[in-house]
Amino acid sequence: MTPYAQRSTEELTALRDKLQEEYEKIKAQGLTFNMSRGKPSPAQLDISEGLLSAVSSTDECFAEDGTDCRNYGEPAGIYEARKLMGDMAGAPAENVIVCGNASLPIMFDTVARSFTHGVCGSTPWSKLDKVKFLCPVPGYDRHFAVTEFFGVEMINIPMTETGPDMDMVEELVSKDEAIKGIWCVPKYSNPQGISYSDETVRRFAALKPAAEDFRIFWDNAYGVHHLYDEESKQDKILNILEECEKAGNPDMVYIFVSTSKISFAGAGIAAIASSKKNIDFIKKYMGFQTIGHDKMNQLRHVRFFKNFDGIKEQMKKHAALLRPNFETVGNALERDLGGLEIGSWIMPRGGYFIHFESLNGCAKEIVKMAKEAGLVMTEAGATYPYHKDPNDSSIRIAPSMSTPAELEKASEIFTLCVRIASINKLLAERA
Amino acid sequence: MTPYAQRSTEELTALRDKLQEEYEKIKAQGLTFNMSRGKPSPAQLDISEGLLSAVSSTDECFAEDGTDCRNYGEPAGIYEARKLMGDMAGAPAENVIVCGNASLPIMFDTVARSFTHGVCGSTPWSKLDKVKFLCPVPGYDRHFAVTEFFGVEMINIPMTETGPDMDMVEELVSKDEAIKGIWCVPKYSNPQGISYSDETVRRFAALKPAAEDFRIFWDNAYGVHHLYDEESKQDKILNILEECEKAGNPDMVYIFVSTSKISFAGAGIAAIASSKKNIDFIKKYMGFQTIGHDKMNQLRHVRFFKNFDGIKEQMKKHAALLRPNFETVGNALERDLGGLEIGSWIMPRGGYFIHFESLNGCAKEIVKMAKEAGLVMTEAGATYPYHKDPNDSSIRIAPSMSTPAELEKASEIFTLCVRIASINKLLAERA
Repeated sequence: MTPYAQRSTEELTALRDKLQEEYEKIKAQGLTFNMSRGKPSPAQLDISEGLLSAVSSTDECFAEDGTDCRNYGEPAGIYEARKLMGDMAGAPAENVIVCGNASLPIMFDTVARSFTHGVCGSTPWSKLDKVKFLCPVPGYDRHFAVTEFFGVEMINIPMTETGPDMDMVEELVSKDEAIKGIWCVPKYSNPQGISYSDETVRRFAALKPAAEDFRIFWDNAYGVHHLYDEESKQDKILNILEECEKAGNPDMVYIFVSTSKISFAGAGIAAIASSKKNIDFIKKYMGFQTIGHDKMNQLRHVRFFKNFDGIKEQMKKHAALLRPNFETVGNALERDLGGLEIGSWIMPRGGYFIHFESLNGCAKEIVKMAKEAGLVMTEAGATYPYHKDPNDSSIRIAPSMSTPAELEKASEIFTLCVRIASINKLLAERA
Repeated sequence: MTPYAQRSTEELTALRDKLQEEYEKIKAQGLTFNMSRGKPSPAQLDISEGLLSAVSSTDECFAEDGTDCRNYGEPAGIYEARKLMGDMAGAPAENVIVCGNASLPIMFDTVARSFTHGVCGSTPWSKLDKVKFLCPVPGYDRHFAVTEFFGVEMINIPMTETGPDMDMVEELVSKDEAIKGIWCVPKYSNPQGISYSDETVRRFAALKPAAEDFRIFWDNAYGVHHLYDEESKQDKILNILEECEKAGNPDMVYIFVSTSKISFAGAGIAAIASSKKNIDFIKKYMGFQTIGHDKMNQLRHVRFFKNFDGIKEQMKKHAALLRPNFETVGNALERDLGGLEIGSWIMPRGGYFIHFESLNGCAKEIVKMAKEAGLVMTEAGATYPYHKDPNDSSIRIAPSMSTPAELEKASEIFTLCVRIASINKLLAERA
């Protein structure tokens, strides 16, 4: 295919008019599709039906050490749940606290706690004039929303194919004491599906932050969320906790994991893993906050999955459902946009999203056009702090909640909008 | 019985020696009893076994409005759970947010939120020089621990038989803008089992606080926790939300309720109820904190209890188990200490505790002696802010976790310690 930019104005105009005609026809059909929702489909949730009866009588309510999971106690969680989540996080059970039904509240609490009580003895952030976070972009909107809510100044860090731009991270972190954290989704990142290279992880572990209370918020949300069963097609990342220890920075990272996209999205279990020093500090806080999280749900998960291998087996079932969806969208992008040089994307090997990078200044227009034709996409800009995408080029595609047939049609609409908006932009530049 | 204070020194000395001999004999037996744990017994937890299978297949996972409870969403909780908890709190479903497994984290969050984000637009408490809370004493140690953890200055308010000393509350609240809240357990209070009179509730509702962001933290932890089934033997309190509205203070109260001591102590559901303005403010905060609490557990509770009547029926089963325990302790206190004028107690008609008020300066000694004889009591002073009981006279007795036979023996030890410590005090005063 000849790239659009190399085609004549006449050719582009004629093509645009033809595409616009197609678009109007589709619009008239009153279709409705949705590629905005990054949540598991009902079929994926069905995989965990066994969880519902994993603990169904009184004599099954006891943990291995005899703890009555129905009653108060064990604020760090029952041992076997700490072990299970620790295996997922790459941390020993002792370094894990299992909390409630999702990891977002743990991250929120971690920020809130730093504001009210500091970090392992540091000045509470609420007493500081300025607190800054580094935000690899595009990234997860709910991360950025948490720090925005606490008045944190967020600094964009461009993502590369191996993770955040580490030159920039190293420089900023080492010279600015106001920088207290960085949001990371190290594996199958949201939304690009990028996994951090070994070098990136090692450079993270070796950071020399100006702030003693600087922490890496390592949200390993998609740690086991491969799309392919073959190990050769699965991304692997280094164990950040071990790397931090080796680098003499044992306390620099918080790891967050959850079963939200493994068992039930709204009723999973979630955990934080970190160094003993950090975990002890968090436990002290939690000692005031709760008499203990829901141990019955912890027990259900342990009984249902048995161990980390059980989780890996479960993920193969998710992959079987998700793979056709991702491939449908990927194939459509390649078929309709390949070679046109009006956008780029990386086909991820895991996670929940495909990220489309349009020509600068086109993302909002594409999302708007799609919506008018009945296809709801994630709001353009949502993947940037303050919802401000400086290039207006980032579009997040979430293929999990639809069928391949729906995605086929939805992708057609999407690529049509991309082509029209791109031609309009190219023509406007020439005018 | 002749009060000890009216007996001669010789008589008291002889009695003390005789009691001390009994005490040494008991000590030598190496018994172990525990009256410190305010949690439901295993038999009480067994009552809720049906909860374990209340939702056991995929097609049962949907709320009345079709919401898939397995997935993300509904941060305020599913409607039927809001209705159920609202009925318990005395508030319409719309004014209720159902959260996680216990009310303590909701209270903690409410304080934390006020520190970081203020109250409905007020200055965040972390920006103020001083924040004070009123603390009716004796009270619940975990309430006081939360405010202490946030550096709040706590002011003791003596409890009377009709609730906190309202003259004092009214005066302090109206003149000191730094006073931002008061901790209340309005029904079957912890630890005294006192229920606030109608006048007390009305005076609360009619407070004229100097601080616009003053709030009543109304922890209705024992709202349905009667010991007797006959309505004539049950305490009733006025609906604080309605009274506040009538008095022109619609936003002044947060109500906290939970099923912790109704279903599973560690795996119940909990809620906050308040005015629309407060609930909207809290919802905004929660929108950043969570994608939604565990709706599966909400659904389990709704299916198991069906409605508020179902909860009331369940409470009769709890009462049947708790009543003999309370009566055993109450009878022993009356039998061994009645008329001696060395302590006082109110026999509660509900809740989880019996409070014993010893002679001044004796509580620590009694608890210490009991421990040495094998009976663990709640630490003396625990019911006061900073663990400082100015009179050293407050002892909390928790009869739920033991059998009547155990409580019979434990009470004997307890009253023996009370008698010895009291005589020693009286003799020391005469010396």
